[in-house]
Amino acid sequence: MKSAVVLLSGGLDSATVLAVANAEGYDCHALSFSYGQRHSIELDCAREIAARVGVSSHRVLDIPLRAFGGSALTDDIDVPKDGAEGGIPITYVPARNTIMLSLALGLAEVTESEHIFIGVNAVDYSGYPDCRPEYIVAFQNMAGLATKAGVEGRPITIHTPLIELKKTEIIQMGLDLWFDYSLTSSCYDPLEDGKPCGKCDSCRIRNQAFAALGMVDPLWMKHYGQAPDF
Amino acid sequence: MKSAVVLLSGGLDSATVLAVANAEGYDCHALSFSYGQRHSIELDCAREIAARVGVSSHRVLDIPLRAFGGSALTDDIDVPKDGAEGGIPITYVPARNTIMLSLALGLAEVTESEHIFIGVNAVDYSGYPDCRPEYIVAFQNMAGLATKAGVEGRPITIHTPLIELKKTEIIQMGLDLWFDYSLTSSCYDPLEDGKPCGKCDSCRIRNQAFAALGMVDPLWMKHYGQAPDF
Repeated sequence: MKSAVVLLSGGLDSATVLAVANAEGYDCHALSFSYGQRHSIELDCAREIAARVGVSSHRVLDIPLRAFGGSALTDDIDVPKDGAEGGIPITYVPARNTIMLSLALGLAEVTESEHIFIGVNAVDYSGYPDCRPEYIVAFQNMAGLATKAGVEGRPITIHTPLIELKKTEIIQMGLDLWFDYSLTSSCYDPLEDGKPCGKCDSCRIRNQAFAALGMVDPLWMKHYGQAPDF
Repeated sequence: MKSAVVLLSGGLDSATVLAVANAEGYDCHALSFSYGQRHSIELDCAREIAARVGVSSHRVLDIPLRAFGGSALTDDIDVPKDGAEGGIPITYVPARNTIMLSLALGLAEVTESEHIFIGVNAVDYSGYPDCRPEYIVAFQNMAGLATKAGVEGRPITIHTPLIELKKTEIIQMGLDLWFDYSLTSSCYDPLEDGKPCGKCDSCRIRNQAFAALGMVDPLWMKHYGQAPDF
């Protein structure tokens, strides 16, 4: 059976990727990270999603990125709530995808997986340098040279099934697989009771995408029982 | 002042690299990892070396590689003591240099360093795929695409001052800078009192190199007070 490491944050994108990898017949080893997030709701979501989809293993690694600082997701910088800005977003975490893919690469070697799935997207997150196709190609090239498996003729393939998709297309892909998006968490700054704020970029993008599909976000419906008023 | 992240294990090679970077005028941020080593002697050495050389900062990150398994340095596999074998050594840690360089890349972004120094060597450790020049080139290429700094025209340079050197040449380089090698630790399997075993590949290579320079390893002299009898 073909085996894959799937990076799973607990957000909408990575959950869709796990559903896709599972549907394509991969034996999935899910990998999540605790890296000093100010909220751990998404890790709870990741565990629930992994269990529902039915993975072979799920590891949550504690990565001390807080020791670096430098990002709104790990520091106490205010998360922007006035819509997307130009340039690289303040929510950018230094070298995050590189660090996560590197750890996925190590796990792939140990689990003898020749595939890694990651939910990067170059459309909605075009400001992140490590979400671009050329970055992924460069990582895959490096990974082929880095590993015992690569040297022995079994290079790793990095799969990015979402990379060129709009948010609506991502959601439609998951819906076609009967994935339940109420299991996911996307908010950068959840309320104390765990409800999505509805104001950060991530909440806005997500809600607008569901609305464009003629739906109310199942997560929003679960928490608020009605459509958002924005 | 030009700034660099220097990967520092506490071993002979990385200590030499730190001495070199410091001598070349870099403002050094040392970065060490605790990744489930069976012995922590080398981390004590790293702290001592960083203090003696005089770095701007020294971070020790705890990386949960033990959760992966797959290596003599993190598992309970017996360390080979009968000389170097062909192929990839059992002491190979999956994707280790990739993981360490990725974290160094994150720290480089945060500290606004455009340089990373790593003590990889393609001569004595030719069995490790992630010590080869072509791997380092691929990593640097990937890093240039991965980061905010790279996008803004300040790509990271990966420095590997030891990559083509023999062990004797590495030691001579450090000696020329008056570096005290009794501060370092190289043994894969130290005795309970912290003394080097003198039997593992790492001890053998190190002792033979000092002998070839007409010296007794200062570390061996510190612990045993005489030349090794092998």
